Amino acid sequence: MDNSSLHLRYQSIRDRSVALTHPLSPEDCCAQSMMEASPAKWHLAHTTWFFETFVLEPSEKRFKPYNRAYRELFNSYYNGVGDQYPRPNRGLLTRPSMEEVLAYRSVVDQCVLDLIDKDALDAKQRALMTLGLNHEQQHQELLLTDIKHLFSFNPLDPVYDDSQHSVGQNPPPPMTWMSYSGGLTKIGYDGDEFCFDNELPLHLSYLHDYQLASRLITNGEYLDFMEDGGYENPLLWLAEGWDWRQRHALTHPLYWCWKDGAWFEFTLHGLIPLDMFSPVVHVSYYEADAYTRWSEARLPTEIEWEHAAKYHPVEGHLAESGLFHPRTVQDSGSHQFFGDTWEWTQSSYSPYPGYRIGIGAVGEYNGKFMVNQYVLRGGSCVTPSSHIRPSYRNFFPADARWQFSGIRLAKMPD
Amino acid sequence: MDNSSLHLRYQSIRDRSVALTHPLSPEDCCAQSMMEASPAKWHLAHTTWFFETFVLEPSEKRFKPYNRAYRELFNSYYNGVGDQYPRPNRGLLTRPSMEEVLAYRSVVDQCVLDLIDKDALDAKQRALMTLGLNHEQQHQELLLTDIKHLFSFNPLDPVYDDSQHSVGQNPPPPMTWMSYSGGLTKIGYDGDEFCFDNELPLHLSYLHDYQLASRLITNGEYLDFMEDGGYENPLLWLAEGWDWRQRHALTHPLYWCWKDGAWFEFTLHGLIPLDMFSPVVHVSYYEADAYTRWSEARLPTEIEWEHAAKYHPVEGHLAESGLFHPRTVQDSGSHQFFGDTWEWTQSSYSPYPGYRIGIGAVGEYNGKFMVNQYVLRGGSCVTPSSHIRPSYRNFFPADARWQFSGIRLAKMPD
Amino acid sequence: MDNSSLHLRYQSIRDRSVALTHPLSPEDCCAQSMMEASPAKWHLAHTTWFFETFVLEPSEKRFKPYNRAYRELFNSYYNGVGDQYPRPNRGLLTRPSMEEVLAYRSVVDQCVLDLIDKDALDAKQRALMTLGLNHEQQHQELLLTDIKHLFSFNPLDPVYDDSQHSVGQNPPPPMTWMSYSGGLTKIGYDGDEFCFDNELPLHLSYLHDYQLASRLITNGEYLDFMEDGGYENPLLWLAEGWDWRQRHALTHPLYWCWKDGAWFEFTLHGLIPLDMFSPVVHVSYYEADAYTRWSEARLPTEIEWEHAAKYHPVEGHLAESGLFHPRTVQDSGSHQFFGDTWEWTQSSYSPYPGYRIGIGAVGEYNGKFMVNQYVLRGGSCVTPSSHIRPSYRNFFPADARWQFSGIRLAKMPD
Amino acid sequence: MDNSSLHLRYQSIRDRSVALTHPLSPEDCCAQSMMEASPAKWHLAHTTWFFETFVLEPSEKRFKPYNRAYRELFNSYYNGVGDQYPRPNRGLLTRPSMEEVLAYRSVVDQCVLDLIDKDALDAKQRALMTLGLNHEQQHQELLLTDIKHLFSFNPLDPVYDDSQHSVGQNPPPPMTWMSYSGGLTKIGYDGDEFCFDNELPLHLSYLHDYQLASRLITNGEYLDFMEDGGYENPLLWLAEGWDWRQRHALTHPLYWCWKDGAWFEFTLHGLIPLDMFSPVVHVSYYEADAYTRWSEARLPTEIEWEHAAKYHPVEGHLAESGLFHPRTVQDSGSHQFFGDTWEWTQSSYSPYPGYRIGIGAVGEYNGKFMVNQYVLRGGSCVTPSSHIRPSYRNFFPADARWQFSGIRLAKMPD
Repeated sequence: MDNSSLHLRYQSIRDRSVALTHPLSPEDCCAQSMMEASPAKWHLAHTTWFFETFVLEPSEKRFKPYNRAYRELFNSYYNGVGDQYPRPNRGLLTRPSMEEVLAYRSVVDQCVLDLIDKDALDAKQRALMTLGLNHEQQHQELLLTDIKHLFSFNPLDPVYDDSQHSVGQNPPPPMTWMSYSGGLTKIGYDGDEFCFDNELPLHLSYLHDYQLASRLITNGEYLDFMEDGGYENPLLWLAEGWDWRQRHALTHPLYWCWKDGAWFEFTLHGLIPLDMFSPVVHVSYYEADAYTRWSEARLPTEIEWEHAAKYHPVEGHLAESGLFHPRTVQDSGSHQFFGDTWEWTQSSYSPYPGYRIGIGAVGEYNGKFMVNQYVLRGGSCVTPSSHIRPSYRNFFPADARWQFSGIRLAKMPD
Repeated sequence: MDNSSLHLRYQSIRDRSVALTHPLSPEDCCAQSMMEASPAKWHLAHTTWFFETFVLEPSEKRFKPYNRAYRELFNSYYNGVGDQYPRPNRGLLTRPSMEEVLAYRSVVDQCVLDLIDKDALDAKQRALMTLGLNHEQQHQELLLTDIKHLFSFNPLDPVYDDSQHSVGQNPPPPMTWMSYSGGLTKIGYDGDEFCFDNELPLHLSYLHDYQLASRLITNGEYLDFMEDGGYENPLLWLAEGWDWRQRHALTHPLYWCWKDGAWFEFTLHGLIPLDMFSPVVHVSYYEADAYTRWSEARLPTEIEWEHAAKYHPVEGHLAESGLFHPRTVQDSGSHQFFGDTWEWTQSSYSPYPGYRIGIGAVGEYNGKFMVNQYVLRGGSCVTPSSHIRPSYRNFFPADARWQFSGIRLAKMPD
Repeated sequence: MDNSSLHLRYQSIRDRSVALTHPLSPEDCCAQSMMEASPAKWHLAHTTWFFETFVLEPSEKRFKPYNRAYRELFNSYYNGVGDQYPRPNRGLLTRPSMEEVLAYRSVVDQCVLDLIDKDALDAKQRALMTLGLNHEQQHQELLLTDIKHLFSFNPLDPVYDDSQHSVGQNPPPPMTWMSYSGGLTKIGYDGDEFCFDNELPLHLSYLHDYQLASRLITNGEYLDFMEDGGYENPLLWLAEGWDWRQRHALTHPLYWCWKDGAWFEFTLHGLIPLDMFSPVVHVSYYEADAYTRWSEARLPTEIEWEHAAKYHPVEGHLAESGLFHPRTVQDSGSHQFFGDTWEWTQSSYSPYPGYRIGIGAVGEYNGKFMVNQYVLRGGSCVTPSSHIRPSYRNFFPADARWQFSGIRLAKMPD
Repeated sequence: MDNSSLHLRYQSIRDRSVALTHPLSPEDCCAQSMMEASPAKWHLAHTTWFFETFVLEPSEKRFKPYNRAYRELFNSYYNGVGDQYPRPNRGLLTRPSMEEVLAYRSVVDQCVLDLIDKDALDAKQRALMTLGLNHEQQHQELLLTDIKHLFSFNPLDPVYDDSQHSVGQNPPPPMTWMSYSGGLTKIGYDGDEFCFDNELPLHLSYLHDYQLASRLITNGEYLDFMEDGGYENPLLWLAEGWDWRQRHALTHPLYWCWKDGAWFEFTLHGLIPLDMFSPVVHVSYYEADAYTRWSEARLPTEIEWEHAAKYHPVEGHLAESGLFHPRTVQDSGSHQFFGDTWEWTQSSYSPYPGYRIGIGAVGEYNGKFMVNQYVLRGGSCVTPSSHIRPSYRNFFPADARWQFSGIRLAKMPD
């Protein structure tokens, strides 16, 4: 990418993050609803810290941190860089203010753009810049999931986006099975643009024949499972999932609520009647797995998913639509591989054969999370479209529900 | 009190609460540092809810709540009124905004002042009005303790009051013992102005002869205890206190910190060098008790304290000084009974003989907390001076440290 | 007490402890059902440790501990003596075996009896011996309460005592109010036999006129409270009690169970139909307090209780009956002050005026527990009769239910 | 297998379980050291329950349970069979006694042997019988691991096996790398004897070239990691592993202890000096992974391990040696694939392609645990030799340390 393109791309992605906070008040940007979520302001500051630490510091001879305290406050989990402010307390950082964080962003942005414009970045720094932009896009998505989670605690049902969200009138096409032939297949990123280290190396893997559902599971279909006693029958659940369901007395997906004799769903448009035709979203791995067992099917492996996805165009209902909520597929030729909801796979997040953790602090980016997490694929309605690809591996613990996670069925051919 | 005085008093106390938030940003007013503390914005809204619920609702024929949702959001613990928003989540209420809460205050204030001006309040409503104003003053104090607690989590050491806090140059007069004769004594509120129900009935109690220290324990004296191994010797501690100290690995009062070879203390003026001459503050009952055992003394009972305090003028270093931090007593005739720090007594918070819980929801004000709490007396540097009196009973659990709580020694005459 | 009487008393109390374990298997004696309870074997060993540490060690010139490891294993909470084996793990001490513990008892007993017979104990050691015997009696009671708690977890409903327990046919006399005049009264132990240090000093206290119920509350009366929604109405509960009730979803006293359309109670005789006429037992302070509020009465203070109890003979249904379960009072002249159930008082456990903690390790016996505990009076059906007296102060936390704790009402005269 | 062989095999395996408890007292057999471990007596009863429920009940026309209560008491986790006694409370089941459990075993054994002798079992029941015997062998191993865990809490350092355990004098041969060629390989059980359902179906998998260490990591090698700061450097750990290590303040493998200036290890032979030459054991997945990162290697995948193991004889230091502790390999031709310690693999426990959960309650045997567990291979010094095979998949959570788990390195060829 030439410098002026990089300049533009940097500016556009960085501006996008700030734009996402426009509907929010300073308080909205400061609060933290649980340890796993971060305040919007913290997302803005941390992504800036990333560029300051990994691009500016190694590039500037007389580098001085913008604010020494920020080095620790906005370090997420990079032990190689230094200590970190305790994660569960991020919501207590009422200072620096939003304004101060925006000033921090401006200063760092100016320095980064100067480096670009002066052509002062070597290949390694350019790679880190690209990593930083992809990192920023991840936080754009997290910012939206975290705000949704925060707002869901407020009985006033705050609305992030007040454009009307129309509930679908037409059902999606019936679910059918799409068959894929197995054999040796190449898995991993196979291109010359950016990918995360966990998508590499490109490697051979052996696949058995398999089938995938033609679309995501809908709210209506999930409700059938619930009404058939899905949340009461331990035989449908992983043992650990059943313990989790019992401990929290769960009976429905995260944002559903029963009110005045009907189901509603909390969304970034506020509380809306549950749309039976749109994809079910905000379910845990445990719930997704129980649903598949009830359906006499299973979740796809990430290898199956990637192999199939490579037959399909990388297009779908992503963040650019500005809807920030999954929508009903209307076209039987559209299979929802990309966008709408992340799709749980049955695959534990683990290194590809020959995977090497990167050297230095950015080596902490991915590798150290490869235990007790499950891979999700395909992006969601809050994922930027330039951020997703067939080999992209997202990962969350089996009990995570606040991400836009949904369900696609898989099975062996009969 | 005539109507115009009441009008003025109402306005002045209500304005004072808002004034206390002037140094704060919207984020500062929204965050909650622990379950026991509340956001400043919530304090402003809850005290308004109190007047709306207990004064406006029973007084207005066509009463309509300002906002139906606020009835639950800003109810603290009145089961008789209805459900309550979960206390640990108050910091998640980014909406309503500070502006909206101030609007809520204005509307309720206007209604209340109208009722006063129209002379439309009967005796019971006037009593509830007075209760509401005293309630508001309690929350003024809590607002300051809670902000201090919140700020203490921020490595930027935020400053609430940027006026210079001068560290004392002169030691206080030496501690001496003041002797009091026992016998039958009247305990409880003995006047015709306002008091809380827990100060009644006025009743006889038998006291043995006792002695009280002439002033509060200083930071320097407390440091002697620490340096003598006070936090390492279980024989000085209540068993439960020792478990608490071990579990949290505590070695000093709440806001002390050791930095670059010296002790500092976090205050509403930011982080300042520890003043050896000013009173130790922010210690738990357990710590206060351990200190007294090390001193071969004990804490006073609340009866002893009240009996002695009635010999002294109700004056001291209270909130009006605007210092919001205890200061060194300079005058051997000044005994710090009122202001500077709340004084832990060894008395469990329990009903006075013949105490009756009030009828209706305000009956939940005091009585239901009479278990596993300990009485503190005398007010602190964040207590409004019109709010304190010898019979005033404050109470907190034995492990509470975020209140301005300090230590006065007592003993039997030798 | 002369030496031969002391010899006999020692032998009889020590034998009694062992006799209590006769119905138990080695496994029964080893298991621990919760941190607050101890295995029967541990009770036998710890009481022996007490004599070894506080009587033998200071009396024998060439004292050698029976087993060095026991010094720590069977130290309960005496920091002055040394470290303690972690309390929650006592049930993991499958070694030493019961046989080895009995051998330990024999050896220590022989040494103690030798000291007595040789008249080798000075006054201080005799005092510690007496303390040890009273300590042993406390553990006899705990052994029974702890076994009951352990057995209650076993669906086989183990029976400690298989003698038939007959459910009462006749109701108790109706509850009436007994009036007592107040004034200055002496409180504390006023005799020349043994008492615990917490019963001293004898001191003056001022009492207001009061009334006490003529007998304990029965199961039937408590059931009325339950059926009137007592466990569902927060206005009847202390705030902390209500939280406790909610957190544990409690709806009845500890050992009650609803089965096949009727109430049963687990006892040391196994599971028996709930006897409506016998005293309710195994309720917490919170439950006792809620019951009194529902009854428009209150719990007595410990001062009131002691003052009243001194008018009554120290007799009642105590451990010697061998029934180990409260029974219905049949005689309107019998008021159940002693025996049947411990009676919760509203008094927090605190030092009497002038109380001094004893010197040395036995000073840890009582004083260090004087926080967040409530006083119970009068002994129960598992208390040895030679162990109880009007001034006796038992104490447990407000949520304790596994002791034989019941309810007596008090109130001011109308 | 003909009936008389089956009769003999049944008797021999069942007798073996009881023989393992011979060194134990009734108390030893009853206690439970943590939720994940079970009392020895419970193991004996549960394995009997398995035969009663899955073999006798479907085979006997007039089947009556031996004791109705045992149906629930000794059901481990089969929701399809009915309710289960709460797992954390198994140590509270002092009744039934060991004698009663042995009587239960005898009666069930007699019934099972009768069915065998009468040739009354159909193919399905014979399969369940075989499953039951393999299940029994698993519990034999657990019985030993659980007793070791229990004994480790006792400062008396109980000895399960008092035969002398000689600490090795000779170092093992140096570790070398063994190279394996990749390609398509068959994974899973490939025979006509018994295997668990999780070893099926036999399926093709693609392997890259890889290398495995020629033997297990020794205590001495692990100590090098410790002395190089292994437990203090977060960059060596999985993020979740580091949190775990911090939370529990861990600094060494489970049973190591530092005493009088030297390392010791608690074993079934009591506390012995740490043998630097024998394999490190009782490490978690997190510790094993950190060790491999420090070694610039990694853990093998379970596919790599199985592929390699099939080149080696199924022999090693297993339970039959009676040593119950790993020993130093002395022979450079011996590679410790089987026995000594279970070997952590980096593979999450997941279903093989085409895996189908069995119908009915035994379907709960394996499948429902396939989340957040990691596969271990090869058996240990407490695994019966007739129980292990190359395709055998054991699994435990990443923080489990009380199993005999050790470390083998793997890497890509240079």
